[in-house]
Amino acid sequence: MSTNMRTSVLRGVKDLVLEERPVPTPKPHEVLIKVTAVGTCGSDVHYYEHGRIGDFVVEKPIVLGHEPSGVVVGRGRGATKHELGQRVSLEPGVPCLHCVQCRLGRYNLCPGMVFFATPPVDGAFCEYVTLHEEFAHAVPDSMSDEAAALIEPLSVGVWSSRKARIAPGSRVLITGAGPIGLVALQAAKAFGATEVVVTDVRQHRLAVASELGATATVDVTAEPLAGVDFEPDVLIECSGFAPAIGEAIRKVGRAGRVVLVGMGGDEIPLPLGHVQTRELEVTGTFRYANTWPTAIALAASGEVDLDRLVTHRFGLAQVEDALTIAQRDETAIKPVVLPGS
Amino acid sequence: MSTNMRTSVLRGVKDLVLEERPVPTPKPHEVLIKVTAVGTCGSDVHYYEHGRIGDFVVEKPIVLGHEPSGVVVGRGRGATKHELGQRVSLEPGVPCLHCVQCRLGRYNLCPGMVFFATPPVDGAFCEYVTLHEEFAHAVPDSMSDEAAALIEPLSVGVWSSRKARIAPGSRVLITGAGPIGLVALQAAKAFGATEVVVTDVRQHRLAVASELGATATVDVTAEPLAGVDFEPDVLIECSGFAPAIGEAIRKVGRAGRVVLVGMGGDEIPLPLGHVQTRELEVTGTFRYANTWPTAIALAASGEVDLDRLVTHRFGLAQVEDALTIAQRDETAIKPVVLPGS
Amino acid sequence: MSTNMRTSVLRGVKDLVLEERPVPTPKPHEVLIKVTAVGTCGSDVHYYEHGRIGDFVVEKPIVLGHEPSGVVVGRGRGATKHELGQRVSLEPGVPCLHCVQCRLGRYNLCPGMVFFATPPVDGAFCEYVTLHEEFAHAVPDSMSDEAAALIEPLSVGVWSSRKARIAPGSRVLITGAGPIGLVALQAAKAFGATEVVVTDVRQHRLAVASELGATATVDVTAEPLAGVDFEPDVLIECSGFAPAIGEAIRKVGRAGRVVLVGMGGDEIPLPLGHVQTRELEVTGTFRYANTWPTAIALAASGEVDLDRLVTHRFGLAQVEDALTIAQRDETAIKPVVLPGS
Amino acid sequence: MSTNMRTSVLRGVKDLVLEERPVPTPKPHEVLIKVTAVGTCGSDVHYYEHGRIGDFVVEKPIVLGHEPSGVVVGRGRGATKHELGQRVSLEPGVPCLHCVQCRLGRYNLCPGMVFFATPPVDGAFCEYVTLHEEFAHAVPDSMSDEAAALIEPLSVGVWSSRKARIAPGSRVLITGAGPIGLVALQAAKAFGATEVVVTDVRQHRLAVASELGATATVDVTAEPLAGVDFEPDVLIECSGFAPAIGEAIRKVGRAGRVVLVGMGGDEIPLPLGHVQTRELEVTGTFRYANTWPTAIALAASGEVDLDRLVTHRFGLAQVEDALTIAQRDETAIKPVVLPGS
Repeated sequence: MSTNMRTSVLRGVKDLVLEERPVPTPKPHEVLIKVTAVGTCGSDVHYYEHGRIGDFVVEKPIVLGHEPSGVVVGRGRGATKHELGQRVSLEPGVPCLHCVQCRLGRYNLCPGMVFFATPPVDGAFCEYVTLHEEFAHAVPDSMSDEAAALIEPLSVGVWSSRKARIAPGSRVLITGAGPIGLVALQAAKAFGATEVVVTDVRQHRLAVASELGATATVDVTAEPLAGVDFEPDVLIECSGFAPAIGEAIRKVGRAGRVVLVGMGGDEIPLPLGHVQTRELEVTGTFRYANTWPTAIALAASGEVDLDRLVTHRFGLAQVEDALTIAQRDETAIKPVVLPGS
Repeated sequence: MSTNMRTSVLRGVKDLVLEERPVPTPKPHEVLIKVTAVGTCGSDVHYYEHGRIGDFVVEKPIVLGHEPSGVVVGRGRGATKHELGQRVSLEPGVPCLHCVQCRLGRYNLCPGMVFFATPPVDGAFCEYVTLHEEFAHAVPDSMSDEAAALIEPLSVGVWSSRKARIAPGSRVLITGAGPIGLVALQAAKAFGATEVVVTDVRQHRLAVASELGATATVDVTAEPLAGVDFEPDVLIECSGFAPAIGEAIRKVGRAGRVVLVGMGGDEIPLPLGHVQTRELEVTGTFRYANTWPTAIALAASGEVDLDRLVTHRFGLAQVEDALTIAQRDETAIKPVVLPGS
Repeated sequence: MSTNMRTSVLRGVKDLVLEERPVPTPKPHEVLIKVTAVGTCGSDVHYYEHGRIGDFVVEKPIVLGHEPSGVVVGRGRGATKHELGQRVSLEPGVPCLHCVQCRLGRYNLCPGMVFFATPPVDGAFCEYVTLHEEFAHAVPDSMSDEAAALIEPLSVGVWSSRKARIAPGSRVLITGAGPIGLVALQAAKAFGATEVVVTDVRQHRLAVASELGATATVDVTAEPLAGVDFEPDVLIECSGFAPAIGEAIRKVGRAGRVVLVGMGGDEIPLPLGHVQTRELEVTGTFRYANTWPTAIALAASGEVDLDRLVTHRFGLAQVEDALTIAQRDETAIKPVVLPGS
Repeated sequence: MSTNMRTSVLRGVKDLVLEERPVPTPKPHEVLIKVTAVGTCGSDVHYYEHGRIGDFVVEKPIVLGHEPSGVVVGRGRGATKHELGQRVSLEPGVPCLHCVQCRLGRYNLCPGMVFFATPPVDGAFCEYVTLHEEFAHAVPDSMSDEAAALIEPLSVGVWSSRKARIAPGSRVLITGAGPIGLVALQAAKAFGATEVVVTDVRQHRLAVASELGATATVDVTAEPLAGVDFEPDVLIECSGFAPAIGEAIRKVGRAGRVVLVGMGGDEIPLPLGHVQTRELEVTGTFRYANTWPTAIALAASGEVDLDRLVTHRFGLAQVEDALTIAQRDETAIKPVVLPGS
């Protein structure tokens, strides 16, 4: 194995370069992973274009990419969970494990979380990464490298279904049919939702939603949501489009749950009267906890189709193309970076 | 409409006759239903053979049958929920609605429950029945009369999955592949279980279980359960075979749930040490509450196949055959009585 | 018993008169109750001053008052729960009992709810009322008539604690120390909260909060909430003061619950970014369900002190004074109407 | 500080000696604690008398004692949570923190748990111990050393109340008024139970139960439990007396919870018919998770009185007396070892 590796580094706004960096060494309980596929995410695009997301600022060069799959090729001291050669999906955030939040099982809320591609922590647009062995999850041979990478966005979908307590027979409204809306849709179906209505402003995305199991779709440029005859008991908000959030909440029936996945801004007017008189529950998702086993089981059993989401593939030298393809091709859903290609 | 109807009446042990009885009149908020199909259940067989189940004793002639579907053909005063002609699945137990259990939403535990075919309340092996309109549930045209009848056993399956908190990724062990085991299996799959192992002592039933989605089956006459390499997080006990319950419980992993659906007797030795050190939860099911909308949605969407369970069909004059066919034909799963045939 | 009774009737805005009306007759399953005490509530004041609350408009004369206690003096057909002479606290809303919400145990969300003193339903500022026997709850002899009346506001407190999942060790922030804030405080303590910080703009109310168990109080006219060193895991918002709600939500720690009890308006800006990154749950309360047994048990055991809240007493001829005393006497917490005095 | 310390060592059945051992050195993230008080527990007595508990066998000398309090006197590398001199209560089991159970927040079920005084791990009947800093919990100055030690048994009580979902208004039956029954009682009261009936066979213990808040007590040598007019919704079984468990379960009302804390043996006959028709939930407790903050808050606020449980005090040289006093003095509840005396 070479001691150096190719690495895509963001040095500043719209300044991505390919560098040689040393292959990292796994610490105790860590594994060394040869990266096979990495999904690109809206947050990668945002760092590339703006150099920051809220309080997280790119102050020194950083490696983006936090949806990786790979193969275990090395093990640190005490790492016994995986054999060399094991194909894995990587959970990109490792919490401290011993704080109050971690001990309660809510490790996604750990203040000490170390998360890929979140300044100043490097991500996975490179050939090798290291990770605590318990956060590298074995995948079956039947699962593609790309699907193994997309377990990460599927985890967001699984987490939103759990937060929404979706169960067999649930009626679900999903606003926004981007990559997150489409995994939320598939997760909702896997949790047993029998009616799932998906909204968006782009016909192409709504067509994919239908293909992946939406029981109805609404193009809100043509048909105001308020007029649609559907009273969901769950809303999964994936658009992050602030002006539309209130209208969507007003659709939700008594004792319904509203899960805000899209980030719509810090301060948003909400229809509290509606929330109170119907006793809705409004919450948000922040990453996920304990979702990988579920997401892998769903993808492996065929309940969820992740490969369908992959629309474009790029090498490490083309990360910039991967992060900008959506501007040039509106059919782009999930571009994937393949470091080995 | 005739004022009389044909009715199958159990006068005593193994003494079934066809009688003419007056068509009942719906009370306020009730509907009159022309019965189209009625599943037969183990409890019907038990009353036929023994004249009692525990404290419930057949002391005067009774009509059996508590898994009916039908068509609304009349409405009592104030009944506005259904149009005449609406096809419905009948929830065969109507609680008092105002006691503590009912107000808490646990109406299956209502001490004042009036339940079809439970002495002294008559059931549905007849041409017409009346029922509170809220307990007659509309079914879509795409659903067969027989499937609409079998929403009742599916409700048992849905209830057991809810009690067991089955969720996507759950690993489930179902002991017993009779009619209840087979609906429990299908419900577990619909709730997202990705591994469902089913046990029985008859190959024929295990073959049906495989067909309906079991990921593995175990013939416990050939292979002791203790030796099977599978640690479920949920056990749904559907055999009611007391000697096997403890062995099944010992398979369940930490923090697992055990739901006893089959009635195995009043006093059974349980492996409490295992329950305590793994913090298992052991509970039972007693009928069901709020399951019809879910069960109908699952059957209507195709997630669950109820028609597959129907193996034999009989007219009202052949109820005795329906209740004894399982003794003569081991492939019998769910014989159905069709009052109109 | 006289066949007529004195009744305080609101004919329009600020137009209250005492009328003679017939004593009502209990329907089946109802009891006739001689009213002993009725708490006054902010909603009574609001109808008196404005003739409406949101969509509920006083279009014809109405009797206000929905916090009554009394004595059972008559029983309708089939009413067997209470003996004549039984002292009771009245749950002032009777749901339909058979709709989907009722069957799920969420009867407070029943669209068919019939609720005292909500147009066009009459309330309890009179000598006699009738009520479904299951919604008249027996109280022990040790409980005063006034405390039995105030089981209603305590139910609001109990409901908010349940919605907030307050448990032993919880840290709770209560904004607003009016009558609802003070019962929310006492309920929170009874649910095991070990730190309860109460805010208000009036020193007198904060002093009562301290007396009733607040571990700290904050006069937000003197000390901005943002600067207070306290991170609650629960916020019970009882002020209904829209500009302060966002600031209070920003205090809440990870995975915390926010329960909006005060009505602050239909559309309010909320700090959604904070809700999302901390995965807060925001919900509201709409009346209550299944709270009377709990509230009575807490008041009877001495865990909660309701008598302390009663500051003024009035007869039926003085309902106007009861509804306006708070304008003249800032020490008023809960004025009570005693129809028999 | 001396480099050696006095240590009470169990070399075999009923063979306790005082040895000099080196003071341990805290590893990274650990603290060194000077032990101030250690409660004695039935399991300590059992190891002393039998040399084993189930599969846990004393195969080499072991230090008993797992209910310790102390003062932080040293810190390993990276340990920053506590200042030197901080008084702490010790959570005596440290899980691996990274396995599936730990990540789910159920760390009490961690297969890799390292637990004080459980072979081959040494306990706290000595002058100094080391512990992961997150499992040493600061206590307020107002709490005695002995109460700080008894946070451990109180945690068992808190855990049983959580498992039983005790809430305000709960009616609770506690069978057995030994040390665990008495903390279960106090926890149940702190969780809001308004009726708590306690049974035992010794009048002395029942008197203490009354003093600590039991609303009624039953001497089951004089009055069979079956005849007592009380239908609890929760049973906390603390006697471990197998023949009585079934009778106690038969008392529990619909949808009630049964939590087995006492160890009654591996295989026990249970009234499953009752469990099924009433849909009881039966579970057990295995240690506890995330209970220390709650237990400390309850003891600090005065809701729970731990000092009342301490009946006898011994030095390190008298551990044998501490473990056998209950044989000689039936008023013994919780003997405590004070290593500094």
